[in-house]
Amino acid sequence: MEQKEEFKRLKEIFSKITNLRGTRRLLSWDQETYMPKAGHKNRAMQISLLSRLIHELLTSDNTGQLIYSLCEKVNIKNDEDDLSVCIREWKREYDRATKVPKSLVEELSYKSVISHNAWVEARRNRDFSIFFPHLSRLIELSIEKAKCLGYKDHPYDALLDEFEPEITTKEIDELFKELVPETKRLLKRILNKQEQHITINLDGHFSIKKQRQLATIMANVIGFDFEGGRIDTVVHPFSTKIGPGDCRITTRWNDNDFTEAIFGILHEAGHGIYSQNLPKDHYGTPLGESVSLGIHESQSRLWENLVGRSREFWTYFLPITKGMFPVELKNITLDDFLRLINKVKPSFIRVEADEVTYNLHIYLRFEIEKELIAGNLLPQDIPDAWNSLFQRLFGLKVLDDSLGCLQDVHWSGASFGYFPTYTLGNIFSAMIFQKAQEEISDLKKSMEIGDFSELFLWLKERIYTQGKRYNSTKLIEIVTGKRPQSKYLLDYLKKKYEDLY
Amino acid sequence: MEQKEEFKRLKEIFSKITNLRGTRRLLSWDQETYMPKAGHKNRAMQISLLSRLIHELLTSDNTGQLIYSLCEKVNIKNDEDDLSVCIREWKREYDRATKVPKSLVEELSYKSVISHNAWVEARRNRDFSIFFPHLSRLIELSIEKAKCLGYKDHPYDALLDEFEPEITTKEIDELFKELVPETKRLLKRILNKQEQHITINLDGHFSIKKQRQLATIMANVIGFDFEGGRIDTVVHPFSTKIGPGDCRITTRWNDNDFTEAIFGILHEAGHGIYSQNLPKDHYGTPLGESVSLGIHESQSRLWENLVGRSREFWTYFLPITKGMFPVELKNITLDDFLRLINKVKPSFIRVEADEVTYNLHIYLRFEIEKELIAGNLLPQDIPDAWNSLFQRLFGLKVLDDSLGCLQDVHWSGASFGYFPTYTLGNIFSAMIFQKAQEEISDLKKSMEIGDFSELFLWLKERIYTQGKRYNSTKLIEIVTGKRPQSKYLLDYLKKKYEDLY
Repeated sequence: MEQKEEFKRLKEIFSKITNLRGTRRLLSWDQETYMPKAGHKNRAMQISLLSRLIHELLTSDNTGQLIYSLCEKVNIKNDEDDLSVCIREWKREYDRATKVPKSLVEELSYKSVISHNAWVEARRNRDFSIFFPHLSRLIELSIEKAKCLGYKDHPYDALLDEFEPEITTKEIDELFKELVPETKRLLKRILNKQEQHITINLDGHFSIKKQRQLATIMANVIGFDFEGGRIDTVVHPFSTKIGPGDCRITTRWNDNDFTEAIFGILHEAGHGIYSQNLPKDHYGTPLGESVSLGIHESQSRLWENLVGRSREFWTYFLPITKGMFPVELKNITLDDFLRLINKVKPSFIRVEADEVTYNLHIYLRFEIEKELIAGNLLPQDIPDAWNSLFQRLFGLKVLDDSLGCLQDVHWSGASFGYFPTYTLGNIFSAMIFQKAQEEISDLKKSMEIGDFSELFLWLKERIYTQGKRYNSTKLIEIVTGKRPQSKYLLDYLKKKYEDLY
Repeated sequence: MEQKEEFKRLKEIFSKITNLRGTRRLLSWDQETYMPKAGHKNRAMQISLLSRLIHELLTSDNTGQLIYSLCEKVNIKNDEDDLSVCIREWKREYDRATKVPKSLVEELSYKSVISHNAWVEARRNRDFSIFFPHLSRLIELSIEKAKCLGYKDHPYDALLDEFEPEITTKEIDELFKELVPETKRLLKRILNKQEQHITINLDGHFSIKKQRQLATIMANVIGFDFEGGRIDTVVHPFSTKIGPGDCRITTRWNDNDFTEAIFGILHEAGHGIYSQNLPKDHYGTPLGESVSLGIHESQSRLWENLVGRSREFWTYFLPITKGMFPVELKNITLDDFLRLINKVKPSFIRVEADEVTYNLHIYLRFEIEKELIAGNLLPQDIPDAWNSLFQRLFGLKVLDDSLGCLQDVHWSGASFGYFPTYTLGNIFSAMIFQKAQEEISDLKKSMEIGDFSELFLWLKERIYTQGKRYNSTKLIEIVTGKRPQSKYLLDYLKKKYEDLY
């Protein structure tokens, strides 16, 4: 068969897969937003059927033959050629899906469902022993999976690769080596300075209707397109892409603290803006897809933190916000507000962490996962390992596993290798934003008058329109001229807190 | 292969088909309710992909072989045997899907999309000539389709069969023969009497929030389960079953007239109650599916009209409604209100028609469709045929095709054979309700105190739990002891309007 014909056929297969994945995401979105309670069992069957159909299409002999035949004809290392990029990524997907035996995939999937329930139970009862046997089995299966997938240096590499293609344990080790000690020093300094100031608290009732208006304005102003997106209410916020012209974000509301929804929505809108601006013409191929979780997170963090918690952003938005809540925010100054939304507070729970301590939470999880997958740490020793490392990092004693190793959902789904992408996102976001500031003249001034269009277009050109052409390391190098490093995140945080206090 | 094994495999195939259909219905529901505008193109691709997958599963050689092998082993005419019923219905589906060549299916599907746009345009411009060439081709293709499907007496039978299995043109002819002249006489009498009374009109603003509360209470009280269902807002209301535990209804709101949403919701809730109470254990097989559009419509009409427009219903609900709109409904009496919601008014538009004139609208469409498919009426003669029959039935002159033959969406989708199921629903509903009154002691008294539970259980046992075991004619015979006939609908209408005036 000719190369052109083979590619056309492969494209048709992956176009089907992509459409089925978008459909599956609608099933999940609906499950979290509007599905009637009693629909759960039916929904599980629908999602599992689509997953089976996707897996069948992806792993069929026909798919494999087309991919391997094309691999002989094109140089898949050529990033600059569209066709090569597609084959490279399709091969990655095919290999990952076929290297792991069906029985292992099925046991992992089945055990994940069971383990999730056990984890909920364990967290509620603050009792690790309820979760332990399940977690233990998931770790065994994940070690087995890593073996099947193969790796050069560290078995954890094989798992990382699912979420952040081609990154290695060693690279992440190095990033944390640079990041952690300096973060600890910075944290100490900030806490000292913070003590000398009074951080005011929000006081009042903030109507959800007005919060929604405000959040909608902000999401819109930074570039989220409501013709091709929407905001809905859920328990655990997320963003999702149903397809071109249809990227949805979600939030929860707290009527005592409007900043929760605002920063939640800026975060999800950041994901949404990336998804909305991936090349529509390439939908169904890797050139229409996002690079990795790390790059995705860099976009949510950039808009949430680098932009959303900046003096410039609130120079423009605080007056608007005060206009909406004139009584509740009457006496608050810009400085008060900036200190409030940037308050640093070491705490037990990752999802409540500030920008400074967040990466310490991730480092802890990374260290534990890495050692578990290497077989150097046994599952029964997780609580001890967690609590002692937590003490070293935060100077706080974990008295309850629900505030410790039972707090996150990830392990119950065997998502080992996911956590590091949060810190990668933070590191990337600082590097990208630093470069944007260098290249866009008067970016800060534009932000002060609520104009984010140049930043949006800069990101669109350099990141969104690239699809999956490069892996994250290479994309960061191309955009910033530098290999991933923690320096820029540290510089940003130092500068910010120097200015604040 | 053993019969048991064959049946198991076939059940798996149809379970997949059913899950994919439920998923497709969620895609459509979302399209009408929450989908962002820009998602249309993507949604069309997702729906068309699922349709293709469903068609592939349904028409595969494997499916056909299993069905025909089982047909040799079981007597598919035996309604009382679950397995036979399934094979009979699966054979029906398979035959209908395979008798029509793929090229014809595809042209019909493609032309329907094009024709829909042309119809919208034609209606807006009140210009039949815009729609004519498209409609003309759809009729040709439908005649061709009827030929492929085969029929005994009338080609229209083959098309009717899609919506109302096993009913014939002749049977519908007979029902209308009984119904139409008597309806015309009745209409004259009612209009005369109506003139002698002043029918009051609603006056005031009815908040949507309160309308929603009221409609939710009513839907709940008649048996719609909100644990397994919900109400959303759309332009063109419908009900849909995503799967067991997940049946959704929709409505639109008019803040000058709350009765529109109330009767709309009672209608859709009637569909919803039927869907919710089909046997969950048989989901994925015909025994978990509804009989036909006619039987489905009988349930929506029963709750909307026979129950919802009755004196008993409002004896209970008018005080509650007045409690919600105390100012707006201050001076309205039960008699006033019953005359208001049962007002008869010959008009051009089917969807606005009252209970009495509604079937005349359907008769007109049935006559035209029947003659078109038989080749006795040419597409270019539709406006004349429509307008002259309309004049004979309603005594009104159609001056504008947008109020005549361009008003309905059905023909643009080639849904010839659909219209008669509306009148079948009305006829069935009157027969069923008459029997319910005979068998449930003090039904009227229960209704007066807002207790619809016995009626609900009566319908559940006799209709909902039967699934597709019998065709509509046979089900009606079993439930009422009589073959379908128009007498009971006429009796009901005569009695109602005698009581009203």
